[in-house]
Amino acid sequence: MELNEKKIKIMEVAEKLFAEHGFSGTSVREIAKRADVNVAMISYYFDSKDKLLESIFLYRGDYLQSKIEDLLQDESLSSWKKLEWVTDEYVRKFISNQHLHRIISRENGMIHNGYIRNFIIQRRHQHYMILRGFVEQGQEKGEMKAGVDTLMLYTTLQSLTQHLVLNADFMQTVIFSETKRDPSFQELQDRTQQYLKVSMRAILQVDTIQMEK
Amino acid sequence: MELNEKKIKIMEVAEKLFAEHGFSGTSVREIAKRADVNVAMISYYFDSKDKLLESIFLYRGDYLQSKIEDLLQDESLSSWKKLEWVTDEYVRKFISNQHLHRIISRENGMIHNGYIRNFIIQRRHQHYMILRGFVEQGQEKGEMKAGVDTLMLYTTLQSLTQHLVLNADFMQTVIFSETKRDPSFQELQDRTQQYLKVSMRAILQVDTIQMEK
Repeated sequence: MELNEKKIKIMEVAEKLFAEHGFSGTSVREIAKRADVNVAMISYYFDSKDKLLESIFLYRGDYLQSKIEDLLQDESLSSWKKLEWVTDEYVRKFISNQHLHRIISRENGMIHNGYIRNFIIQRRHQHYMILRGFVEQGQEKGEMKAGVDTLMLYTTLQSLTQHLVLNADFMQTVIFSETKRDPSFQELQDRTQQYLKVSMRAILQVDTIQMEK
Repeated sequence: MELNEKKIKIMEVAEKLFAEHGFSGTSVREIAKRADVNVAMISYYFDSKDKLLESIFLYRGDYLQSKIEDLLQDESLSSWKKLEWVTDEYVRKFISNQHLHRIISRENGMIHNGYIRNFIIQRRHQHYMILRGFVEQGQEKGEMKAGVDTLMLYTTLQSLTQHLVLNADFMQTVIFSETKRDPSFQELQDRTQQYLKVSMRAILQVDTIQMEK
């Protein structure tokens, strides 16, 4: 996607409006007004409101792919370190885009069979393939166990991160009742990342007894 | 909650309408019309639309608690068998109430700070306490590892089950691309339950080397 200042302005304004009023509750006319451009220009750049949302996703998520390739080639790091990097990066990236994910979650019923839904499924499929690549590398090196359900492993990563964004209030309620202390969002994020890494290790570790055979 | 035929009829009609048109998209007048009662009777029985939804939750989820107590006392089963029973039962129960969970998920943005939101948080807190009870029993017996983040363990159970209900299409897309076969919902449910049990074992198992010390 070629970017220029006007395009970026439109996307940032649209993202903010979608977050405030919902995707379906925001008109292209309103976006044009706030971004100080005319409606025809939005159509020219993005074609439709669906494609505008898709462009925001691409704009917010584009940079990861090239880093992944470098990391897969890097022989100096263990498979565990790489998997942990990917896990942390996924959570961090998701959190930094949480407005977008709230929009999607809220609209999920409405756009269930639509263009955006298919786009999200494709994106998740890509993320799953990335995680699978790292796990397979670890398995080929004998550092990780074979026969693990990698789709469910990715699903756990995706679900727990989404849970963190949408249900922080639940976690805060439980932690407050147990410790009489209000945890910050950062604390919840650290705890989620820590748990993801520890549990992935537990699930993927090669059984010690088997290794000694 | 005392039940009678009329009350049950109203709840079942309301649940169906909420699932079809959303919670906020369904009026008490419409519920009254379809259930063939008058609006005053709904107010008399349930007070408000919020409390009607709460009553549906209680109606759909009430029976579990007594089984839990019996199971905790049962000395003939291992801690693992008990945890697996709770896991399977949670998923099965959630799936059988999936209309309700779709409603909640779709309305999440709108009722974020409301009465229903607090009610859901309380219910989840109860479910978390149940899971914690079983894990603590296993830990006291030395069958399960101490120092595991039980809140995140519960969150995984809750998130993966919700993911199954709301994102079956994602899982189907991935499985189709890998096997050229359309999995049934039952297959996805079995796979989720299997993964939950295997991964809980991995996370909670007492390290073999430590045990031999």
